[in-house]
Amino acid sequence: MRYFVIVGHKAVTTGDFKLDDISGGAGRLDILVRCVNSAFFLSHDVRRDTQLYLVLQGGRDAPKTVRFSGTDVRYLNPDERSTSSLIRNALLKKIPEGDETKSSPGVYVSKMSFGDVVSLLSKKGNIVYLKEDGTDIRECAVPQDPVFIISDNTDLTAEEEELLHSYSGNTVSLGPHSLHADHCIILVHNEMDRSLS
Amino acid sequence: MRYFVIVGHKAVTTGDFKLDDISGGAGRLDILVRCVNSAFFLSHDVRRDTQLYLVLQGGRDAPKTVRFSGTDVRYLNPDERSTSSLIRNALLKKIPEGDETKSSPGVYVSKMSFGDVVSLLSKKGNIVYLKEDGTDIRECAVPQDPVFIISDNTDLTAEEEELLHSYSGNTVSLGPHSLHADHCIILVHNEMDRSLS
Repeated sequence: MRYFVIVGHKAVTTGDFKLDDISGGAGRLDILVRCVNSAFFLSHDVRRDTQLYLVLQGGRDAPKTVRFSGTDVRYLNPDERSTSSLIRNALLKKIPEGDETKSSPGVYVSKMSFGDVVSLLSKKGNIVYLKEDGTDIRECAVPQDPVFIISDNTDLTAEEEELLHSYSGNTVSLGPHSLHADHCIILVHNEMDRSLS
Repeated sequence: MRYFVIVGHKAVTTGDFKLDDISGGAGRLDILVRCVNSAFFLSHDVRRDTQLYLVLQGGRDAPKTVRFSGTDVRYLNPDERSTSSLIRNALLKKIPEGDETKSSPGVYVSKMSFGDVVSLLSKKGNIVYLKEDGTDIRECAVPQDPVFIISDNTDLTAEEEELLHSYSGNTVSLGPHSLHADHCIILVHNEMDRSLS
């Protein structure tokens, strides 16, 4: 399995935003929405071996985590608007205490924080922090069942980085330029696809 | 310079579509819009060394070509809706006979067909056809000033392929899976970035 965790530092946690305003009023939710596209779409196919965790830290109901599961996801289309709608539906769901609830097939929402998600996934796979000053992905062995951690348009906070380092020292980079989160996912998938082919 | 040519076989050529319906009524314009994002965005920067030609072949005013020029583009944001708006503005412009006209800084529109665009760019650079059965990009030397040709969610027609082959035999692939056009652009840029660094 390939896991991706994207931290949306200002992304809204309530479902009262407008689909026309995901880049503004929804706290740059557009960044996370594009990550959904990158994580799951092949040409005429969906990556079933991928799980994506969107950690939303903005708004009055933070934190929340929306999980997209390639195994069972349905009604997923590549455009931003329809994916934003799936996320909005998830954020409108009532979440049982300490649990995760399904909002549509393959889309789940919980009150998990970044720390909760990293703790959970550290038991399922191996944490890999994607950052510009890491080892080039072409020069290191990516571990089995990698859990790639990516920040949105701002860096992880010092506390978030410290938390990651308490689990793993794997820090990986993808090339000479600093890139958008969704673009990073494309490069990671390609590298993993090549290593398996 | 890096050139990308994306063929939108059904993408509309009139500006009367709704920004909420780019995946439907606008003939999968969403595919082309995502290519704009991939072609130009770095984290907190724009790729000035890139030119993108969107060849629109759908609707009653086909063909039209919308060109995005990294050199002088402004008002470009990563989300689909705002880029769709730039394209719609271009399609609403009156185009002088046999010429290209500017609709906003760095965005130009013309009546060029696929054949016209390929002919023009073959004089400025070297045609490279991105297709699944090509030589792996990591195993070939990408020529100077490459002109990457990518189709939308359908293959190029036999006539379009024949036209390309009359200019060049360069056919390049990007890995073991068939990918969306915008994802291909990310991989190409990364490969080029690495070759220059």
